[in-house]
Amino acid sequence: MPWHQPRRLFAPVDIATEEQVEIIHETSLRILSEIGIDFLDPQARRLLARAGAKVESDSERVRFDRDFVEETITTAPSEFTLHALNPDRNLVIGGDAIAFSAVSSAPNVSDEAGGRRPGNHEDFQNLIRLGHTINTVHFWGGYPVEPVDIHASVRHLDTLFDMLTLSDRAIHAYSLGALRNQDALEMIRIARQVDDATLDREPSIMSVINANSPLRYDTPMLQGIFEFSARNQVIIITPFTLAGAMAPVTLSGALAQHNAEALAGIVMTQVVRPGSPVVYGGFTSNVDMQSGAPAFGTPEFMQSAMITGQLARRYNLPYRSSGVNAANALDAQAAYESVFSLWGAIMGGAHMIIHAVGWMEGGLRASYEKMVLDADLLGMVSTFLAPLDFSSEALAFEEVRDVGPGGHFFGTPHTLERFRNAFYRPMISDWRNYETWVEAGSPEAKGRMVELVAELMDSYEPPKMDPSARAQLEEFRDRRKQEGGVPTDY
Amino acid sequence: MPWHQPRRLFAPVDIATEEQVEIIHETSLRILSEIGIDFLDPQARRLLARAGAKVESDSERVRFDRDFVEETITTAPSEFTLHALNPDRNLVIGGDAIAFSAVSSAPNVSDEAGGRRPGNHEDFQNLIRLGHTINTVHFWGGYPVEPVDIHASVRHLDTLFDMLTLSDRAIHAYSLGALRNQDALEMIRIARQVDDATLDREPSIMSVINANSPLRYDTPMLQGIFEFSARNQVIIITPFTLAGAMAPVTLSGALAQHNAEALAGIVMTQVVRPGSPVVYGGFTSNVDMQSGAPAFGTPEFMQSAMITGQLARRYNLPYRSSGVNAANALDAQAAYESVFSLWGAIMGGAHMIIHAVGWMEGGLRASYEKMVLDADLLGMVSTFLAPLDFSSEALAFEEVRDVGPGGHFFGTPHTLERFRNAFYRPMISDWRNYETWVEAGSPEAKGRMVELVAELMDSYEPPKMDPSARAQLEEFRDRRKQEGGVPTDY
Repeated sequence: MPWHQPRRLFAPVDIATEEQVEIIHETSLRILSEIGIDFLDPQARRLLARAGAKVESDSERVRFDRDFVEETITTAPSEFTLHALNPDRNLVIGGDAIAFSAVSSAPNVSDEAGGRRPGNHEDFQNLIRLGHTINTVHFWGGYPVEPVDIHASVRHLDTLFDMLTLSDRAIHAYSLGALRNQDALEMIRIARQVDDATLDREPSIMSVINANSPLRYDTPMLQGIFEFSARNQVIIITPFTLAGAMAPVTLSGALAQHNAEALAGIVMTQVVRPGSPVVYGGFTSNVDMQSGAPAFGTPEFMQSAMITGQLARRYNLPYRSSGVNAANALDAQAAYESVFSLWGAIMGGAHMIIHAVGWMEGGLRASYEKMVLDADLLGMVSTFLAPLDFSSEALAFEEVRDVGPGGHFFGTPHTLERFRNAFYRPMISDWRNYETWVEAGSPEAKGRMVELVAELMDSYEPPKMDPSARAQLEEFRDRRKQEGGVPTDY
Repeated sequence: MPWHQPRRLFAPVDIATEEQVEIIHETSLRILSEIGIDFLDPQARRLLARAGAKVESDSERVRFDRDFVEETITTAPSEFTLHALNPDRNLVIGGDAIAFSAVSSAPNVSDEAGGRRPGNHEDFQNLIRLGHTINTVHFWGGYPVEPVDIHASVRHLDTLFDMLTLSDRAIHAYSLGALRNQDALEMIRIARQVDDATLDREPSIMSVINANSPLRYDTPMLQGIFEFSARNQVIIITPFTLAGAMAPVTLSGALAQHNAEALAGIVMTQVVRPGSPVVYGGFTSNVDMQSGAPAFGTPEFMQSAMITGQLARRYNLPYRSSGVNAANALDAQAAYESVFSLWGAIMGGAHMIIHAVGWMEGGLRASYEKMVLDADLLGMVSTFLAPLDFSSEALAFEEVRDVGPGGHFFGTPHTLERFRNAFYRPMISDWRNYETWVEAGSPEAKGRMVELVAELMDSYEPPKMDPSARAQLEEFRDRRKQEGGVPTDY
């Protein structure tokens, strides 16, 4: 399947009534005006106070009137283009377009041969390579695995360089203090070989900003908004509200809190720069109330993914969801939780679906084999979303007449012309009959995943890059590393 | 989760435009009027000719004018009640209600300990027992496995007796000649202890009628319509149109042929008895064009499931779809194909979803373990469909205020009151953290399925039944068996 953004040609599904969405909205506004949100950064409080929010002196608490919130967020665009190094990989964010990213921010990595291990630079690079071979990886939503063997002060320099040279997809930078965001802006500018004014016009990098739920934004995250929104880059506001842990145990309560946090973050972006691109992110799921373990791809996740989509549409903003699961093994659970989460995200109208390729263990592990399983799942989802042909040739009236009652369509001209590309051909599904399958050693899906990882890694070719741009990028990385990178004592 | 019919509280999803649905409809009407359908049974041709269809002498071909089709099908009800032996298990068929059935008509059966074997009476009974313990098995859409060790002449007598005594769900009888249908009608009448007039008023048994695609209905199936529709019982018309085999390789072409066949069968039911309950069945999937193997739970299956739903709604009829897969193992494939098929069926507005519990190998095998996997999947789907609580208690404004920024919701009164039943508790999903999971021996989902089969079988209790009704039913079964059952030389 060639690289393309799937498009949702049908309306997203509203599982809550308009009235119920208004109840969530109203409760959120009440949370924002009566309880408020703690903004731990003084600069954020100054900016918000100047714009019209209520900030008490000697307090981190910021309260927002409903009119202020509703008016401030109207400047955010409902759709924008996210530029990649390769213009053929530019993404439409919003409308009916969908974009998937690979697993992001996992601390561990695994493959079947090597087992589970802490994230490291080599696996980081290999996962980028593997993702580059997968046409349903539309962007990098973060590091596929955290390369903890690179010192935190310079890690962003190496990883951004890798993402810009090993792959041609749009990239993400973490908001962990202003300096990192500034380095990222400069690196994407160099890699794209554009001037500052062009970068300001063309969103070219994104950062996910998590509220520190409940009801709090911390300084590193807020600095990410200051740096990126000011330069018209993409902020994805994503409160991390697990119902029963960082949010009420009821889904409507968790969503109301989630919405309040999201609105506060979105307001912050528009206060920094009206019109800067911001995505409404949803991540509300539940915990296992017996153990406290986070759960993903659950029915509650599906419900929250779909209602969050309704909220994003209410505010006319692009919507980010996730492809997730909490499985430890590449088994039925990994598959059903992943597909359930896609069901919620796709039918809920998500525009960006992060973590959709390679995520396991509720985000604690990136898996090579899960990457190819998910590549196949997303190939199926993309085919499901593809438009059907209703032309008279496709309708095949004459063919049905010629075959007639009791005949069959194997080998007819209509079939022969089309059979090669008529249907999605999955990489993993084994459709052999039982006897043939037993003769082949009764292989399960996991074995095919292992084979496919090797095949795809073998097929990897680095994207073309202008040698001068690459040299400048290298020079910047090396110089900044020699300077010691960024302080890590924030 | 207690036994209940889930309800779809949101509108089903239209993935085709109204115009595209009309194109399918118009092409179907052209197939019916210009090509026609072979009805192999002379009685069917006589009835159809008398009602207004065009039947040539010395030909099995029947052609239908569009007006005749469109007018004849209007008498079919859009919603009805299907009566079970236990009135608490009566089903609403249509509207926003959903009903699931277990695997039906599989020739083979398997469990992990015993392996794969041809269907037999013992496994038949045990699968009924297992299904009876599962609250998302709403009815029996057929034999969960074909008990080939019972002679075909009397098989229906033993199996109907088992279904009526080992379980309390609504049942199905196969249309394999009029006598079997007549026996089934008498057995359900005896079991329900009602008179003929009551049975005629209260649909109490169903039969799936497959077109012999392309464009043909055979005598045993047509006799099923004669017997059941005449007695106001439920007919589920289901053409079996695999695109690229028994239907055009294009999905729109396959759906047009499917719709023509479905309309012809629905017409037949309304000619036999206007107003008799009939369900529009969809089963269009694709084959693997490389091997010819049928494929299920594919993106093409999802598309066809959703467009078939649109067609059923166009005709104001209840819609039957399926929960299916083509997997040989209890692996990721079994899970993702099953969930994809549920995605298509549920969002496509299906009212009856057959095969949803225990199906494997494209219908060639019933699996005990797959029964419990699917029970869990359907538990999740039912939870996803359940209404959410938007009351002010659920919204938890005061709770959010009391916890405040940076707090947590573990152990708060609001959480403690609700945590036990706040979320669906899956039977199979393993949400332990990696270290604990490894200590437990790194169990995969399949092992949990094996355990659950044993637990559920242990928990089985036969439903209560009036001893006199049971004795009468036994007497009928034994007498009819002594009479030799039914001829098998049709």
